[in-house]
Amino acid sequence: MQNMPFTLESLRAAYAAGLSPVAVITEVYRRIDDAGDPGLFIHLAPLETVLAEAQALGPYDPQKPLFGIPFAVKDNIDVAGMPTTCACPAFEYAPEKDAFVVARLREAGALPVGKTNLDQFATGLVGVRSPYPVPKNAIDPAIVPGGSSSGSAVAVARGIVPFALGTDTAGSGRVPAALNNIVGLKPTLGSLSATGMVPACRTLDTISIFALTVEDAFAVFSAAAGYDVADGYSRAFSPPFFETPGAGFTIGVPDRASRLFFGDDAQAASFEATLGLLEGLGHRIVPLDFSPLYRIAALLYDGAWVAERYAAVESMIRNSPEALHPVTRKIIGRAEALLAADAFRDIYRLADLKRAAEPLLAAVDLLCVPTIPRFFTVKDLEADPVGPNSQLGTYTNFVNLLDLCGLAVPVAARTDGRPGSVTLLGPTGKDGRLAGLAATLQARVAQPLGATSWIYEPAPASPPTAGPDEIAVAMVGAHMRGLPLNPEVTRLGGRFLCEGRTAPDYRFYALSGGPPKRPGLVRVAEGGASIALEIWAIPLAGFGAFMAGIPSPLGIGTVKLEGGGTVKGFLCETAGLDGADEITAFGGWRAYVASLAK
Amino acid sequence: MQNMPFTLESLRAAYAAGLSPVAVITEVYRRIDDAGDPGLFIHLAPLETVLAEAQALGPYDPQKPLFGIPFAVKDNIDVAGMPTTCACPAFEYAPEKDAFVVARLREAGALPVGKTNLDQFATGLVGVRSPYPVPKNAIDPAIVPGGSSSGSAVAVARGIVPFALGTDTAGSGRVPAALNNIVGLKPTLGSLSATGMVPACRTLDTISIFALTVEDAFAVFSAAAGYDVADGYSRAFSPPFFETPGAGFTIGVPDRASRLFFGDDAQAASFEATLGLLEGLGHRIVPLDFSPLYRIAALLYDGAWVAERYAAVESMIRNSPEALHPVTRKIIGRAEALLAADAFRDIYRLADLKRAAEPLLAAVDLLCVPTIPRFFTVKDLEADPVGPNSQLGTYTNFVNLLDLCGLAVPVAARTDGRPGSVTLLGPTGKDGRLAGLAATLQARVAQPLGATSWIYEPAPASPPTAGPDEIAVAMVGAHMRGLPLNPEVTRLGGRFLCEGRTAPDYRFYALSGGPPKRPGLVRVAEGGASIALEIWAIPLAGFGAFMAGIPSPLGIGTVKLEGGGTVKGFLCETAGLDGADEITAFGGWRAYVASLAK
Repeated sequence: MQNMPFTLESLRAAYAAGLSPVAVITEVYRRIDDAGDPGLFIHLAPLETVLAEAQALGPYDPQKPLFGIPFAVKDNIDVAGMPTTCACPAFEYAPEKDAFVVARLREAGALPVGKTNLDQFATGLVGVRSPYPVPKNAIDPAIVPGGSSSGSAVAVARGIVPFALGTDTAGSGRVPAALNNIVGLKPTLGSLSATGMVPACRTLDTISIFALTVEDAFAVFSAAAGYDVADGYSRAFSPPFFETPGAGFTIGVPDRASRLFFGDDAQAASFEATLGLLEGLGHRIVPLDFSPLYRIAALLYDGAWVAERYAAVESMIRNSPEALHPVTRKIIGRAEALLAADAFRDIYRLADLKRAAEPLLAAVDLLCVPTIPRFFTVKDLEADPVGPNSQLGTYTNFVNLLDLCGLAVPVAARTDGRPGSVTLLGPTGKDGRLAGLAATLQARVAQPLGATSWIYEPAPASPPTAGPDEIAVAMVGAHMRGLPLNPEVTRLGGRFLCEGRTAPDYRFYALSGGPPKRPGLVRVAEGGASIALEIWAIPLAGFGAFMAGIPSPLGIGTVKLEGGGTVKGFLCETAGLDGADEITAFGGWRAYVASLAK
Repeated sequence: MQNMPFTLESLRAAYAAGLSPVAVITEVYRRIDDAGDPGLFIHLAPLETVLAEAQALGPYDPQKPLFGIPFAVKDNIDVAGMPTTCACPAFEYAPEKDAFVVARLREAGALPVGKTNLDQFATGLVGVRSPYPVPKNAIDPAIVPGGSSSGSAVAVARGIVPFALGTDTAGSGRVPAALNNIVGLKPTLGSLSATGMVPACRTLDTISIFALTVEDAFAVFSAAAGYDVADGYSRAFSPPFFETPGAGFTIGVPDRASRLFFGDDAQAASFEATLGLLEGLGHRIVPLDFSPLYRIAALLYDGAWVAERYAAVESMIRNSPEALHPVTRKIIGRAEALLAADAFRDIYRLADLKRAAEPLLAAVDLLCVPTIPRFFTVKDLEADPVGPNSQLGTYTNFVNLLDLCGLAVPVAARTDGRPGSVTLLGPTGKDGRLAGLAATLQARVAQPLGATSWIYEPAPASPPTAGPDEIAVAMVGAHMRGLPLNPEVTRLGGRFLCEGRTAPDYRFYALSGGPPKRPGLVRVAEGGASIALEIWAIPLAGFGAFMAGIPSPLGIGTVKLEGGGTVKGFLCETAGLDGADEITAFGGWRAYVASLAK
């Protein structure tokens, strides 16, 4: 099994066929040896311990979505039985409990194997600010591994574990993904509990997920997400929902003037190619002036938020400053000069800058940016430990301040062979929208995963369905695509799912009155036919307003579908058919409308 | 017109009958002279100026909800042409523009006459921390006027103006209302723009409204509310909706152990009497341990939020500290020692304390507290300028930190003749729920308004209707009150509005299947009858979930009502009547169900 792809699909299939988790864990440790990179893990669990845990899983249980899946954990997240250091040996402590998220992953059947290296206290985007050996970039050891979640990203890119936990405040869950050709899912703040995570900036932090494929990252996210009453920043969301893209999205991208690559033309070309691909998939690209977002990004390190990092390590920086990495100490130490009044002033400034960015964000369904503007070598960082770090955060620093979710996804390799990556950014709670589109993107650029030779084999696309915050509604008349009342549906956030037909139990009428002409669908005991329809997903929160606008004699009831099944949809009162024309023979509204034009 | 009640109703009637705004303004200035209190106004507009503005209004325009209504403005809110001082002469500046809220009130026809005294920089709940003469409490000059919005509250209580603007961070819009026997409406944060208001704590501030009656305060709120893109803390809400109480509310109150009166037994008795009154009105009183709320309250002055006050006046406190009131300087000066890290730590603490308070708040529809725990005299404050101030904030300090809305309303006078007052507290955006209940309370305790001899004459109660965030739905079966499916409605936040009947155009069926038995309402061209129904208001946001639970052959359509009009409601597909029993003759579901029990 030396080259067996460590993806969820591959492992699940192998487990179902009888492979034992013990064999997989043994192979993980072999791969760790094989990698020969002492910078990856700060602490590796003894093989026997993890083998025992693997054995304790018992026979394959498909009810456990992560049965027997090994994973690595960034060393600022607690795993019971392993020390937490945050890459600061003097900070080390022995947690008694798993972090909330680690505990949920264990319940789902996953097996933590070790704690990975990071930019100390998760401060940095480069991956070289650690007293431990620097993890080697999985693609090219000359370039930085990226940080702060360096070890987790490299371990995934090398195929050692199918997924790993990182954290993300300024971009630590996305930048290393771009540098190692893997997926980095940075969920909506508060959707993954921070209990048992050492904070960087508690108001802006989230645990993040690295994986080789979008599906895998989202499956892990779905298993890990959940409200945690013990975390004051946890938020209650509906269960994650992987949204298969229906109609095209409006995708905001930096316009020419605000598209920054700092001279890296190959990166510029790669981004341009991805936008072309998105357009080819039916999405609309809208260039936007990103300056308001960059002004927000500048607040993260220039503003008072660095005092959150200070608050997290205050006793250490006061009592044994020499225990900190010199760059880290310098960055965090700046907070000693910041007053509480400065903090509130910056909080006001953020509120005002957010307001300025609102129209820009409201005009699109999501944003697409290069994950990083350019590459840096380890040598670059030796020459200047701060400048390159700032540039790497160009497209990431504003994201958590704006409460956006993000997903970094590999795209086609650049002309020079370095990995391409874009990040999709979406509104609060729309992680599933990003995942659906990112999976489509990844499927289109099929190429080796991470630093492995494994080729991505997308799962067959499932038909679009309504999410847990939506209700599926069958439209049979002017609400359908391209017809006069369709804007009523899209304005409420309605999302086209599919075309279909009713069971052959309906009569269909063009009601008197209008314009617009309205359709009357009436179920009958006999003499009915099958009528064409469109199924749309309407946000539950918008459905009341939709209902309020439906005039008599129309209403919403249950429509039987061809081939079985039902969906909510438009029906007409029998008493409302006075003066109506029966149009059942047309088989649908579009055919009827076409006949009128003749 | 010397004793003409200055309420909106009284003035509107007089204007409609031909009274001129010029006469009203003249009377305002006569009443100011008559009051003989040099502490009320820091700046009074020249009579000629306001008379000219009154004249410019032209003939009575009932489209302007505040036509010709004079008002006073706390002197930390800008009015063009009048200086803003915040009760600190050295701080004085001449604003070029009206504050956003003042401009909206002017558009509605209101006329600002002057700027009122306050605890300097709105720091205090007593009303005595001003370099200007202290306003005299309108009820009893021995007790403090209350603050920080002292002058505004007294001007309203004395019947000089029908309403006045205050501001509220810790309770400045509620405490003076209690001390002067008037209404203090402290709206949901962000519903009244803060543009043109000098901040105290910008994250917690709101403009507030004093009036003699709840209806007047809410009418002013409705005219003033609106989203302001220029204010980073403005929030978009639906237009304010005065919610007539339908079914009884669950009202949380401090339990015995956490009910604090600091020895004022008359205040304790007054509160007890009000709870009895609320129970008599059909509401359920639930005693709660308020300790989690008091822990939040303690953060406001003990925590880092005082640095917001510091940020607002930093250049003045640094460069000319002697220009500040000594008590104010001492309180705000404490922020000089607070680091940004302290601010973030307190922000985390608030998040955690909010989380701890959530279950308590989720269990009730609203809270009811004494507005103040006890009274203090001016002499008490001379002896101790800080302690009484803290005690006065017992039931107010936690409110804005928790993002609750509040409304202080006069209740029956205490046994010693001092004014009684309770404050209703509700969830974000539920200002109209508080107003509806507070108006009912005020109507029940009819007594002189403020310090005047005018008696409150409540407007005739209008029938309950659905609000802008609700949809009215007619229930005809087991969803009605007391029947098996009613919890489906109340769980979604459904609110009983009224009973009614359909137009005589329906046949009514008990469908086959169940339990529970389901009703089938079908409109027919002839041979129909009128069927009993209940109309419920369902939150728009919850309606999608409600719809998803409605099984075939039922649906939601438009139901015609007896006497005209329509409402959304349950209908049944004709094709779904197979095996159903016609029960039209019963005239309604309850009569049918009763017949089954025989």
